[in-house]
Parts: sequence; C-alpha cells; structure tokens
Amino acid sequence: MNEINRLLAEKASLEDAYRDFKKKRLKLDLSRGKPDHAQLMLSMPMLDALTSEADYIAEGGIDIRNYGCLDGLIEAKRLMAEVMETSPEWVIIFCDSSLNIMYDLVSKSMTHGVMGSTPWCKLPEVKFLCPVPGYDRHFAITEYFGIKMINVPLLHDGPDMDMVEELVAHDDSIKGIWCVPKYANPTGTVYSDEVCVRFANLKPAAKDFRVYWDNAYCVHHLDMKRPCIIPDILQLTIDIGNPDLVYKFASFSKISFSGSAISALACSPANMEDVKRQMRIQTIGHNKINQLRHVRFFKNRAGVLQHMGKHAAILKPKFDLVQEILNRELAPYGIADWSDPRGGYFVSFNTLPGLATKVIAMMKEAGVVMTEAGATYPYHLDPEDRNIRIAPTYASLDELSEALKIFTVVVKLCTIDYFEKEGKAGAE
Amino acid sequence: MNEINRLLAEKASLEDAYRDFKKKRLKLDLSRGKPDHAQLMLSMPMLDALTSEADYIAEGGIDIRNYGCLDGLIEAKRLMAEVMETSPEWVIIFCDSSLNIMYDLVSKSMTHGVMGSTPWCKLPEVKFLCPVPGYDRHFAITEYFGIKMINVPLLHDGPDMDMVEELVAHDDSIKGIWCVPKYANPTGTVYSDEVCVRFANLKPAAKDFRVYWDNAYCVHHLDMKRPCIIPDILQLTIDIGNPDLVYKFASFSKISFSGSAISALACSPANMEDVKRQMRIQTIGHNKINQLRHVRFFKNRAGVLQHMGKHAAILKPKFDLVQEILNRELAPYGIADWSDPRGGYFVSFNTLPGLATKVIAMMKEAGVVMTEAGATYPYHLDPEDRNIRIAPTYASLDELSEALKIFTVVVKLCTIDYFEKEGKAGAE
Repeated sequence: MNEINRLLAEKASLEDAYRDFKKKRLKLDLSRGKPDHAQLMLSMPMLDALTSEADYIAEGGIDIRNYGCLDGLIEAKRLMAEVMETSPEWVIIFCDSSLNIMYDLVSKSMTHGVMGSTPWCKLPEVKFLCPVPGYDRHFAITEYFGIKMINVPLLHDGPDMDMVEELVAHDDSIKGIWCVPKYANPTGTVYSDEVCVRFANLKPAAKDFRVYWDNAYCVHHLDMKRPCIIPDILQLTIDIGNPDLVYKFASFSKISFSGSAISALACSPANMEDVKRQMRIQTIGHNKINQLRHVRFFKNRAGVLQHMGKHAAILKPKFDLVQEILNRELAPYGIADWSDPRGGYFVSFNTLPGLATKVIAMMKEAGVVMTEAGATYPYHLDPEDRNIRIAPTYASLDELSEALKIFTVVVKLCTIDYFEKEGKAGAE
Repeated sequence: MNEINRLLAEKASLEDAYRDFKKKRLKLDLSRGKPDHAQLMLSMPMLDALTSEADYIAEGGIDIRNYGCLDGLIEAKRLMAEVMETSPEWVIIFCDSSLNIMYDLVSKSMTHGVMGSTPWCKLPEVKFLCPVPGYDRHFAITEYFGIKMINVPLLHDGPDMDMVEELVAHDDSIKGIWCVPKYANPTGTVYSDEVCVRFANLKPAAKDFRVYWDNAYCVHHLDMKRPCIIPDILQLTIDIGNPDLVYKFASFSKISFSGSAISALACSPANMEDVKRQMRIQTIGHNKINQLRHVRFFKNRAGVLQHMGKHAAILKPKFDLVQEILNRELAPYGIADWSDPRGGYFVSFNTLPGLATKVIAMMKEAGVVMTEAGATYPYHLDPEDRNIRIAPTYASLDELSEALKIFTVVVKLCTIDYFEKEGKAGAE
C-alpha cells in the first residue's frame, strides 16, 4: 500500500494540475480512430492515378465510367484478395466502407434470412455473441436490429472459445459473432492460430450462423518487421468442409482515404450467390473509378505494405508515446492496466472498477473528448465501468502528450477518490 | 384494311430481310439506359477538378479525405438542391446511386417502419402502387421484399389519380407508390401540375405511406429550349401541411459518371431525422471526395444545365432517328404506337396485343438485345404483352439505325403472323 499512500499524498498537487489544465480551455479529441493528416497525404497521388483515356477501360473492356460490373472489377478483386490473404474469386468489391457491408448483411438476414433460412425478423429471438471489449459500431448494428447481444470475454489470444463453442452448439437463436481477429478494436488482441482453427471448426446449431470476421486492421502493423500473421479463416473453413461459416471483411478506409475508399467481402461461392441476389436489387454496381484508382496506385500487396510502412512511421511514435506516458505516470502505482498493441488504431485502458465514466467526464471538463464510457460493450454497459478506449492516431504528438498528461492526472484523482471512499466504506 | 393487305403482301420480302439480318451476326444492345461514350467524355475534366491541397478542405473546415459528415457536404447539398429544385436543408447526399437509397428506405421500412410506425415485416400484407408501364428496378425492389404491387395506369399526364386517391384513402396496407414524374421510364410522360397537386394533397389511410418521387431525369431534357417543368412536390406538400408524404430522389448518375456519381434524397425534417437514425448505424459517411469533385466541376444549376445541353446534343439525334424510322416504317400501317419523349432515356413502344415477347425473342435471334418483355410491369407481367422499352442512348447512330430497321421488320412479321392467326381463328 506504499504506492497508494504516495498517491493519496499527491492529491492536492494533482488537483492543482487538473485546475491548471482546465484553465487552458483545450479542445482535444482522442475519441475516434481517424487517420492523421500526414497519413492522408500519402495517398494524394492516388487521385492522379488514372491519366489517359485508356486508363478508363478495365480488364474485359469494361468502361469504368459507365454502368455495370455488380461485384467489382477483377483487378480490384485481385488487389483486395492479396490484402485479405484470400482468393480473388471469393471476393466482392463494395463501396466506401465495410461497415456498410456488415449492416447490409444483417439487414438482409433480417428480411430474407441466410441462404434460404427463415428471415430473422420472423423469429421470436435472434442473438449475437459479442467478444468484449469490442467495436462500438458492430454492437450498434445488432442493437439497431433488436438482436440480443451476449458478452463473451476476449482473452489474450481471442474470444473465450470454450464459451463460444458451448453457446453456439446448443442455442440455434445465436446467428452470429462479431470478430476483429487482428489488432482488435480496442484491445489490439491478435487471435492465435488455435483460436482461428477452433472458429473454423465451429458446429453451430443454427445453419444460418455466420462468423462476422472483420479483418479491419489486416495490414495495419505498427512494426512492419514484426507483423502479426493470422491464418486465412476462409481457407480453413474450406479445408475443413465448413465453407459457408464465415463472412470476411476488409477495407481501404484506413489505407487510402477514410470514407472514400473501397471495401470488400470474401466468402464461399454459396454465400456469394446469396449476397448477390440481394445486391442485384440494391445497386447496378459500385464506383468502379475509385476501384481502378486504388488498383493503379497500390498495384499489389507489396505496394500496400510499402504504403502501410509509411503509415507505421507516422503512427508508431504516437503509440510509443502513449506507452511512455502511461508507464511513467501510472505504472508505478499499479492502479490501471492497458494494452500495448502491435497494430491497429487503439489502446485499451482499464481503470479500477467503477471509474471509467467519471474519468471520461472529467476529461471532457478539461477539454479532451474520449470515446464515451461503455462504448466498447453492447448496450453501452461496461459491467465493471472500467474500460476506456484511447485513440491516439488523429492527434499530433504534442496534443497527444498534453491529453495523456491530463488523462493520467484524472485517473489518479479518480483513483484517490475511489480509495478514500473505500476507506470510508471500510470504516463504517 | 388496305394497309393490312399491303403488309401481308410484303411477307416474303420481310422474311428475306430478317434472314439477311440474322446472317450479319450482329451484337447490338438496346436494353439498358446507359449513356453514350461521348457523354462520359464530357465529364472527364471533373476528375481533375480538385487540384491543390486546399481543395480537400470543404466548408466548415471538413477534410474530405477523412471520416465524418454523415449527410453530406453543405456545398454538395446546395448543388443537389439546385438540381432538385428544392432547399439544401432538405437534402441528404448519398453514395453512387439513388436506386440504393430507395432500396435502403424500403428495407428500413420493413425492419423499422416509418417514423415510428409498425415495421412492415410485422404486418400481414404491404402493398405499393405501381404506375404502368414503369421502371423495372423499382418493381424489383418491392417484389424482393414481398410487397404486393398493384398496377395503376399511367395516363398522358401522370398516374390515374382517381384510382390512386381512391385506393390510398381506403386501404392502409398501401404504403407507397413509385413515381418517375418527369420523362418517365419508359414512356417519357411528364406529370401535369394538376397531377402533382393531387399527389401533394393525398390523404392516405396509412400514416406511413410515402410517395417515392424518383426525379431521375429532372434535367435530362432533349431540347434545352423547351424543357419540361414540374412543380416541386416537396414544397407543395409543405405549403399544404402534408410535409412528410414524399421522398424525392435524384442522382448525377446520368449527368457525370454512371455508377460513380452522387445521389440524394430530399424530404421533410421529420423524415430526415427518421432516415438519419438508420444512416448513423449503416455508415460513418459517404465519399466526400466525389461530392466535392462534382461541386467544383458543375458549380451550380447553370453549370449542370450547360452540361446537359451537351448531353442533349448527343442524344437528340438518336431520339430523332427512332421517330424517323418508326414513322417511316410503321406509321403507315397503324399497327403500333410509341412515345415521342422530350427528355429521359427511353421510348415506349406498343405492339398489337400479345406480340411483345415474340418480337423481343426474334430480335435476340437477330443479335439485338432488347429489355425483356414484361420488364416494364410488376412481376414481369405485361397483361397485354404489348410494351417494349427501347433504349436508344448507348448505341451509335449507325448501330441504332441498323437495330431499328431489324426491329420494324420483326414487328411487321409478328403482326402479319397475328393477322394470319386471327384470320384463321375467324374462319374456324
């Protein structure tokens, strides 16, 4: 308890520091995983990637400026397949963002089921498994459609697979699970080979159960020399004879331009046919000019990785700074823990129980917006009110440093409050 | 009957002509409303419309290359509002195509209802009114969602409003009507002011009834000096106090690049809020780079109209050629009728009853793809099997001339067959 006493002794100076920060009337935002301006600049030449009129004719003689080509240009599929570590014939190219694909898939399943199954809207109850902490926009989709979400702990190497296997085997109202298998949002967790194999071997009671495998950060390494590698879940399911189990997603949103990129779904031929039946009604085809622009600029996997190396050079110092400040200011007290990701866009931070909401409120008072408390849990309910998602990518190093210094002061103040109350509670 | 006898006398030479055409092994396509290559070329400078880094910062300091701006850039809303003849604050900008907006709206209504109404998937039956002949992709959306479609005759000045008023007033399972109010697909019909006013005054039994006002061809005049003008239905409904009745759609798909454009929905504030509740779950925001590119290139309504004048210069000769050939080859016999549109992308052609399927099949045999028979009717059921949609825009003048010559030969042959069978039937 020496550390705690030392912390309690600092209370007055921490309160002074917090007051001083508030006086600065800062306006900082660590809430969303947005790329830095410098990252966006790297893709500027992409906008000039189509130069001659011949550039507007894609493989097969397709004029990319006219209607058609429902599932995407073949060259875009090839590029995407290389990024997704899968085969082009399993890829459908979509519009701006993979979030939209996931939304549309859940929406379609509600109204039309999955490969001929009963539409979910006709069922008394539909459930999804949600590894926690996880991505707020995933949970928002299932919440919007009234799908009941069940928390599954995210362990160091992926979701608690004992629990996942047990649940899906016996409950045919469980229709899906949200996964970010690499550099997970927000923890940075990378699923182990064993977890991936167990996923591929799932035997769900519901024939229309799908693994929503959102490989959003597939090439988003912080250290290009030590990239994390996970198996191609789709290939695993095909090898095993379980090919229709998985929808795999990826996007260029955090590679080229956020919100103006291209995205993709990879899945089995039967799933593709099921999805295309819906697509044919919804669209004549997505923006092929943007598809070919991506192809011409990035060329192939090597081109993408080279580009992501430049991203890493911008982002790594920020993630290092987070670790440096948290280690220096908080580690000695043992009052919090946090992730040290090797890729992705977030650091997951845990306070002592019951403090996250207060920390985030005090940060807001000091002019720093953090992702709201509970956002990393379904229904915004963090059962222990501990988890805080730190998004260090968009801020400059100076801003980040400033924001994190306030953060550590606030965490300390909230922790002091916690101990004081606990002390009181103990004395009653 | 002199004309008919003259036609019957031509049978042998028509059969010869048809055989000769088949020998040519043509590959022509009059099936879809696709812009001509020359039209696409007109928009090429748009791709270079963003030149400096300052061009990437939109009004309000929004970096168009990063996430955000759910409902579109304000400058894009202004441009769209001018094209849609409405107010920017009633406009939401969407992605590539307005078809996608309509699909998403129907899909959302199925799962979540309209402004708090019962989700349509929970109702025993949902119906839409379908002015016929109409747009096949509209009908495909309602068919896909199992919505029962009721044919309403499209008269010379719009749908049969007596029927529309009567039906919507007494049947609360009728939730919508598909409208293309200007240069309708395929007839070219322009709704009269009176029809528009009657639409705005509709008193549907269903509170969640909406008019799907697809103003796809709002500026797509063939003669810029004689543009057809229709009232702003949204303003009418607002003036009347019926503001939530209408969803209004438009798109740049046939102004800039087909499938790579921007599209928009205009509606009342209450409808907008309802739609945005769904959008917030589906996307972080659509492609803003493409939005600003359109704004910089087209600038304003005057810029769009100037551009559409160039489209008209390319398209008018094609539509004139259609009239010329049909008038010359078919008018003297009185065996068919067709529209002579002042804008849009189609000519609607009616054979004698029961011939459309056969005409289209014989065209296919001769190497000319036409829109399939029945496509202009819900469920692909043209009750009289008469209507054929001619799409003259994509073919060159030479191709169009060739295809239409075959077409008139085929129509004559099928008509001869019709009279011969009728004669026989009469003789039995």
